[in-house]
Formats: sequence, structure tokens, C-alpha cells
Amino acid sequence: MSAGEQQRGVGIQAILDRRSVRDFTPEPVREAELEQLVRAGMAAPTAKNMQPWAFVVVTGREMLDRLAEGLPYGKMLGKAPAAIVVCTRPELANNGSLELAVVDATCAAENILLAAHALGLGSVWVASYPYEERMAHVGGVLGIPGEVIPLCVLPVGRPAAVKPPIDKYKSERIHRERW
Amino acid sequence: MSAGEQQRGVGIQAILDRRSVRDFTPEPVREAELEQLVRAGMAAPTAKNMQPWAFVVVTGREMLDRLAEGLPYGKMLGKAPAAIVVCTRPELANNGSLELAVVDATCAAENILLAAHALGLGSVWVASYPYEERMAHVGGVLGIPGEVIPLCVLPVGRPAAVKPPIDKYKSERIHRERW
Repeated sequence: MSAGEQQRGVGIQAILDRRSVRDFTPEPVREAELEQLVRAGMAAPTAKNMQPWAFVVVTGREMLDRLAEGLPYGKMLGKAPAAIVVCTRPELANNGSLELAVVDATCAAENILLAAHALGLGSVWVASYPYEERMAHVGGVLGIPGEVIPLCVLPVGRPAAVKPPIDKYKSERIHRERW
Repeated sequence: MSAGEQQRGVGIQAILDRRSVRDFTPEPVREAELEQLVRAGMAAPTAKNMQPWAFVVVTGREMLDRLAEGLPYGKMLGKAPAAIVVCTRPELANNGSLELAVVDATCAAENILLAAHALGLGSVWVASYPYEERMAHVGGVLGIPGEVIPLCVLPVGRPAAVKPPIDKYKSERIHRERW
């Protein structure tokens, strides 16, 4: 196995080892790390390469606390040192499609979750879309324009504990050649 | 930098370096590689951990050619040695939600695209959803039940050429603290 092949094997290991992280140390996330995360998001594929996304990077304590207030599964934002809100803009997507805009931004968000793990940080998908109330809350707190959809809030920080990987492989979900 | 940190850095590099690959060598994809790809897909996060996905792994020449016929941007399937069709099942998703089912399976598909790159393979997102005709075509060829949505077809093979990374970073898509 060449050095390149060994390195590539690590890439897949980062995918297999990622866990949702909800407990963070108080240590701040560095600006360079936040930029790396957003950069990873923007490396995702999009339909017709339209890149219909936008990102709101939040590190202010008050803003993080306000975000937490209206997200039933987002209480950990009250202790996270940072968050990245992944947004999508259907008017920028291929054919102006809401469905494609959501798919494109979802790929970006997944990239950010994986990149956080790869950098020794942790994160978790806190859903905003498709819940009208949560989207209104996140949009209101952050001043997001009405035509922009806040897809999810990704709290970011250093994991308070190392969690072992979970194997979610289910062979019965795999079909061969046809269903 | 420790060996662990160096390895993690490679994880993010695999995200940044991934490209859509549409030209493949005729070399078959090994069974162990196909399993690794599906395993990476199933490592994705899902709302309430519902894992509402299913995967159809296709390596038969005739099936791949038939898939290509009904997908306007899927002609490369006619030369790909394999494909993974990522499906989602709204009835298995949290709250039976179509939107969450699509988001969950999109994360799995993005994981597979990244894992392919990490293994030295290549792939590209060929959209089936949200196009009624394409979903009907893929579903018909593969015998997929009506309640299951074929989200996308991911041709897989060894890249015919190495493509340099593209930097899609756009600082104007990043907002700080608020929009």
C-alpha cells in the first residue's frame, strides 16, 4: 500500500468514525478552524454546480443562547462555543428548485459534520427545516431574509468526551442488481 | 502535530479534493470496495437515528445500460462498472416525513461520494429525485416498490484521469453572527 493509499484509507475512516457530539468543552473554536469547516461545506457537489447555499457563523454567546431557545433539540447550543447555520436559497438552485436547494445544502452540511470530526472537533445536525416554527425562529434571530431557508444549525466545539464509533451497517438494506 | 492529528487532516483533505468523476476505466469495482461504500453511506446521521434508507448495488452490464437510457445526465452509466442507487423510504423516517427522508438519504449519498474518492474510486451524483419521470424510470428498471424513492444513482469506477481539486470557496456566502 502506497503512502497515498494509506492516507486515503484514513479519509474513509473519518466517515465511519464520526459521531454526533452534543457536549463540548468551553474552549473556543479558532477562526481558522471555522473557515476550514465552511470551506469543506462549499466543496460539496450541487446540481448543475449552482452552489445555492449560504452560511452564518455564530460565536457570540448571546446569539447562541437565543438560537437554543427556539430549538427543542438544540439546547446544547447554550454551551457550544460556536455554530454554523447552513442555509439554502431555492432561487439560486438549478431550476429554482426547493428540492434541489435542500439536497445541495444537505451535502454541504454533511461535509461540515465530517470535517469537524476530521479536525478533532464535534458537531451534530440540529434540524431547522422542514419545521416552520424552527425556521422562523432561526431566521428571526439571525435576520435571515424570507427567501432563504435555514436548513440546520450545527453547533461546533471540542468534544467533552471521545465517543467510540457505532456500527449502523444493516445488510438487509442492501439489494443486489434489483430490489 | 501528532500522528492522529496528521491523519485527521487527511480526512478533511479528502473532502476538499473530491471531484465529480464521469469517465471510468473498465476495471471492475471489487465487492469489498462496494461494501465499504455502502457502509460509509450507512454511517451518515439521520433524524432520530431512523436510517430510512436502502441501497441497490448494480454491477450487471445490462442493468447499468438500462439505467443510463432514462437518465438524461446519466449516460456515463453505460461505461461505469458499477453503480449504487441510493433510495429513501419516507414511511421509515422520523414522523414519516418525506423532507427528512430526503435529507437523511442525501447525507448517505454524500458519504458514498466522499468514500469513493477516499478509496481511489470516482463517482458523481446523477439525480433521480425530484424528477417524476426519472424516479419512475429507475424504479421501473430496478423493481423498486412505489413507496420507496430512488434519490440518486451513483456510478462507481476507477477514474480514467486524475482531476485536480477545484476551489469553490466564496467568502461572500459567509455571514458573521447574523445575516
